[in-house]
Amino acid sequence: MNSFGRLFRVSIFGESHGQLVGVILDGVPAGISISEDDLMADLARRKSGAAGTTPRKEDDIPHIRSGVFNGFTTGAPLVIQVENKNTRSRDYTELRKTPRPGHADFTAFKKFGGYEDYRGGGHFSGRLTTGLVAAGAIAKKLISPVTMETSILEVGGSEDIQAAIDKAVEEKDSIGGIIECRINGLPSGVGEPFFDSFEAVISHMVFSIPAIKGIEFGSGFAAAKMKGSEHNDSIIDTSGKTETNHAGGINGGITNGNVVVFRIVVKPTSSTHKTQRTMNFETRKIQDLQVEGRHDTCIALRVPVVLEAAAALATADLMMQSGEIKRINQPKDNIV
Amino acid sequence: MNSFGRLFRVSIFGESHGQLVGVILDGVPAGISISEDDLMADLARRKSGAAGTTPRKEDDIPHIRSGVFNGFTTGAPLVIQVENKNTRSRDYTELRKTPRPGHADFTAFKKFGGYEDYRGGGHFSGRLTTGLVAAGAIAKKLISPVTMETSILEVGGSEDIQAAIDKAVEEKDSIGGIIECRINGLPSGVGEPFFDSFEAVISHMVFSIPAIKGIEFGSGFAAAKMKGSEHNDSIIDTSGKTETNHAGGINGGITNGNVVVFRIVVKPTSSTHKTQRTMNFETRKIQDLQVEGRHDTCIALRVPVVLEAAAALATADLMMQSGEIKRINQPKDNIV
Amino acid sequence: MNSFGRLFRVSIFGESHGQLVGVILDGVPAGISISEDDLMADLARRKSGAAGTTPRKEDDIPHIRSGVFNGFTTGAPLVIQVENKNTRSRDYTELRKTPRPGHADFTAFKKFGGYEDYRGGGHFSGRLTTGLVAAGAIAKKLISPVTMETSILEVGGSEDIQAAIDKAVEEKDSIGGIIECRINGLPSGVGEPFFDSFEAVISHMVFSIPAIKGIEFGSGFAAAKMKGSEHNDSIIDTSGKTETNHAGGINGGITNGNVVVFRIVVKPTSSTHKTQRTMNFETRKIQDLQVEGRHDTCIALRVPVVLEAAAALATADLMMQSGEIKRINQPKDNIV
Amino acid sequence: MNSFGRLFRVSIFGESHGQLVGVILDGVPAGISISEDDLMADLARRKSGAAGTTPRKEDDIPHIRSGVFNGFTTGAPLVIQVENKNTRSRDYTELRKTPRPGHADFTAFKKFGGYEDYRGGGHFSGRLTTGLVAAGAIAKKLISPVTMETSILEVGGSEDIQAAIDKAVEEKDSIGGIIECRINGLPSGVGEPFFDSFEAVISHMVFSIPAIKGIEFGSGFAAAKMKGSEHNDSIIDTSGKTETNHAGGINGGITNGNVVVFRIVVKPTSSTHKTQRTMNFETRKIQDLQVEGRHDTCIALRVPVVLEAAAALATADLMMQSGEIKRINQPKDNIV
Repeated sequence: MNSFGRLFRVSIFGESHGQLVGVILDGVPAGISISEDDLMADLARRKSGAAGTTPRKEDDIPHIRSGVFNGFTTGAPLVIQVENKNTRSRDYTELRKTPRPGHADFTAFKKFGGYEDYRGGGHFSGRLTTGLVAAGAIAKKLISPVTMETSILEVGGSEDIQAAIDKAVEEKDSIGGIIECRINGLPSGVGEPFFDSFEAVISHMVFSIPAIKGIEFGSGFAAAKMKGSEHNDSIIDTSGKTETNHAGGINGGITNGNVVVFRIVVKPTSSTHKTQRTMNFETRKIQDLQVEGRHDTCIALRVPVVLEAAAALATADLMMQSGEIKRINQPKDNIV
Repeated sequence: MNSFGRLFRVSIFGESHGQLVGVILDGVPAGISISEDDLMADLARRKSGAAGTTPRKEDDIPHIRSGVFNGFTTGAPLVIQVENKNTRSRDYTELRKTPRPGHADFTAFKKFGGYEDYRGGGHFSGRLTTGLVAAGAIAKKLISPVTMETSILEVGGSEDIQAAIDKAVEEKDSIGGIIECRINGLPSGVGEPFFDSFEAVISHMVFSIPAIKGIEFGSGFAAAKMKGSEHNDSIIDTSGKTETNHAGGINGGITNGNVVVFRIVVKPTSSTHKTQRTMNFETRKIQDLQVEGRHDTCIALRVPVVLEAAAALATADLMMQSGEIKRINQPKDNIV
Repeated sequence: MNSFGRLFRVSIFGESHGQLVGVILDGVPAGISISEDDLMADLARRKSGAAGTTPRKEDDIPHIRSGVFNGFTTGAPLVIQVENKNTRSRDYTELRKTPRPGHADFTAFKKFGGYEDYRGGGHFSGRLTTGLVAAGAIAKKLISPVTMETSILEVGGSEDIQAAIDKAVEEKDSIGGIIECRINGLPSGVGEPFFDSFEAVISHMVFSIPAIKGIEFGSGFAAAKMKGSEHNDSIIDTSGKTETNHAGGINGGITNGNVVVFRIVVKPTSSTHKTQRTMNFETRKIQDLQVEGRHDTCIALRVPVVLEAAAALATADLMMQSGEIKRINQPKDNIV
Repeated sequence: MNSFGRLFRVSIFGESHGQLVGVILDGVPAGISISEDDLMADLARRKSGAAGTTPRKEDDIPHIRSGVFNGFTTGAPLVIQVENKNTRSRDYTELRKTPRPGHADFTAFKKFGGYEDYRGGGHFSGRLTTGLVAAGAIAKKLISPVTMETSILEVGGSEDIQAAIDKAVEEKDSIGGIIECRINGLPSGVGEPFFDSFEAVISHMVFSIPAIKGIEFGSGFAAAKMKGSEHNDSIIDTSGKTETNHAGGINGGITNGNVVVFRIVVKPTSSTHKTQRTMNFETRKIQDLQVEGRHDTCIALRVPVVLEAAAALATADLMMQSGEIKRINQPKDNIV
């Protein structure tokens, strides 16, 4: 389903080439100062424009259409919408017959019986993360002073990001990357036992971002080569501070007060300028396919702010569940 | 919360040194042939006994206490319990002051204010996966003919499992490992758009297993070094079969009819015989800690069947949501 | 929270004097033929205009902003919005000090700390049922050939509706009423055991409609004066048809194949032209209060179509859970 | 599904003539003092024994099997079980062919395809409310100092309860009744906007109790005959106290600080000693039916404590959502 969260719930809607994309945020505490301007910085970070990103450009002006009154959240649901403007009307009929490798064309068809909006990926498009980023900007306000920090560790197997992008553009191919997210300032005790561990809830949310194919916390896959005596983090003060942070700030699924650290892998953009092979469902023969349209050489470049948003949304919900965020932000003075 | 699933829901309970561990399964279709014997094979696979596993031995006899009548599920909730027998009563008072590195001692204390059952890890213990495995044996019946297949790829950084275990035992240390899970026979179209993608739901469930610190689907983290033209899987027949399977059987969060493949990393067992350092919360000084008790040198050896159970439970719920599993298994002949 | 439903989920948003009101519908099967015109008939039934209803008039043009493509639902969420146009900007400052009896002014203030949008009832306004009615029109399509039928049994204690309204208008007071809803054509077996009985889920949804203060199924409160031998409905054919229908079509929380019948009571509209007494929270003294604005003498007149919508939404979700409604409405012919 | 609650969740299991009945309670705050003795008083109130109740007698000894340690809740799920002892093994084969009027025999068969445990009502039996009452005793602790108070207003249409029972026993028939519940001491601000109003959530839970066919809050159905100026409750102090309480303590779905008052109707027990008519599904002819077994002449007599339990469980969940109940009850002194 297109909703996530128990007390702080985000619901997503829209299509790549439809009228709009957006979100509803339910369970937002009353009394948070919010304006559309507050969302612009993160939306700008998500935009394309740099080398290696798609030439499709959108203004991405967010409209908060409910749930805010006199500059503050009211406790009622926030609807945030971003209109699609730069959609190109063209004929997708031919494309329908030849599902693009790596894309959701075939699976969406199987899931929705051919009724799906297939234009530009429809509801499966990365365009939907626009709403997620807007929602994330609000979630970041809720969890403050907890902060999110992301960095691109590598793209195309190279730590020299610019060089890797240049090479991929030249080869007319696409590349993926690895991104690290750090959540600073989280108190200990966040995360629920067993099924709603901090790792479980973050992962659930993060895998909703298109193109993510893996996640690891702390030492992650490297832990498979470590010994217990190396991997265990010694507690060195009464706040729970640890000497090392192989656990990535989480023990038994619950935050331990250290920085939460996790990394994700973004697969290479499925759309490339290279000729590929796929099945033609009309002729029932395998054929060459040239994917037209505007695409990102390396979508990983635009993922950091989306990842922050996803992590902030999941963190906010867990912090509300553990009582770290209140239903009314702060008492209002001049009432009644 | 200690529940997971939308239509097929598992709830877990119990403590390592309490009376019992177990699960409730709600939403089980009526008419599935089930007996306690059906659960024994998987429970036996989870047991210790082999070199590298804990000397604590439990009979692990499952009792189905409701929801089955005349050998078939009734549609009402199944309660499955396993009594704890081999619990050692000893003094944990000293231990309380010195949280064990890598364990949930400190975080459980922060979460539950000192009321938590701290004996042997309490509700955080790997002992709770007994219930999960029993539930998984039933989930496997539901999803049949879909099957789960797991293999240990490496432990302690070595593909020679026996050698790695022997070395760790000799060093009185613990080691982790990497396990692969393959889900065979899944139809295309399973998984929900956006937040409940197949990857998201599997990951949510899998991170509930203690000691898991990472998960990757298909090529996973290796995709960061691939080009799009390499990573994309060409569709080669009208069933959706692909030439390669870098996507791990999932596009856009929805199964594509190929084998679903994912890998997890199990961290080294937190309990080791090595002397470690931790904070003493009474003296407020860092001190040496010798973790007593019975432990697994390599808990990864016992994880495969738990991983299958977790994956089967999540898969069953998603298959029910997409209509692949019916509420009544098959019509009963001789009724009324 | 502002969402309802397990597989077919409606989320509501908006405020009486804000920009808009509306809903998201998630879990709508793909392949349902829908246009905005399909929603107009029910929205027209909800409108004011008749004697006894508010002079506030709105065009109530619904806009489906996502989830429909080429005239059919796609399986992605539907966003339906109705813009507010006839909102009067006036000063509510004075009103804030003196909560109106019968309204949510005081409780909203207590819940949201003064940040709530108090204009015209804000998020608590009956105006939000506009979105519910639009959603209900779609739910009715899903459950077809099951149909909803409502009738006003009495208003102001009188079965002569027109006379009762005339009298109340003359007295400058407001009145309530009793409305019956019949759900025709429901198969047996709908409703879930224990907590999600058909009665429980319908009631949950129906009490979301503002001004509803009671609900009864079948003989309802009259059953308290009946004997078991009278109240029990004899089964008279193998389809489960019963001679009488004191149970209102439900046994053990599950539909029995007969008509489902229930009645609700709508309290008198809280806003009346009569002078009332309330607390002034500034002066801290009780004072007279004259409620200004446009109101319905008898809101019960406009409730039937809202009640049908609420019942259709709840019924659709339960029918999806019991497998009576499929995820894809019907196979599409002309696709790949 | 057999679960209810967002943060404080009760799951129910068991069958009338199976091994046991019981509940899981998840989300119980840590640090609540609980023993099995605390549950006995309410369980005793639910028992039969008085005139007008069934001769089936059960010890109803509750066993708390997890989630309590050293006399306090730990924050982990509580499993509470009551073994069934006084089950009579007899032949139900004949009964299967002739569904009892008023019972769930026919609907359970339709829902579960003949696999349901039909002995004594199986999972649909009032016997399951034993677990609910045990859970309710814990919920009452959580919501303290809020208290529940119930009274039987009438049975069999008579306020003289004893006389009505005697008459029904003499006539070998069964009767129903009306019960009022009052929730004292609730703060204002409890209940969620729109779909999770206080009335909606209470009703959802209350209709889970077998035999309930109606609910009304405050003036309830009588409001249909009142004028707005009569029905509205004037606020007479700054705590929100109202002069009258026609609203039953709830405005806009949110508690207003006055006593919450609601009434339910309990239908006459479906089992009576009178001969009834039903369909024989084997002969496909209508025939006489004599319902054997032990039954309550007036099950309403045993409902008050069940109603308190249901209301306490729903209230506790809503109070946790609005932040009135904390995740850790009180700090523990002597820890670490």
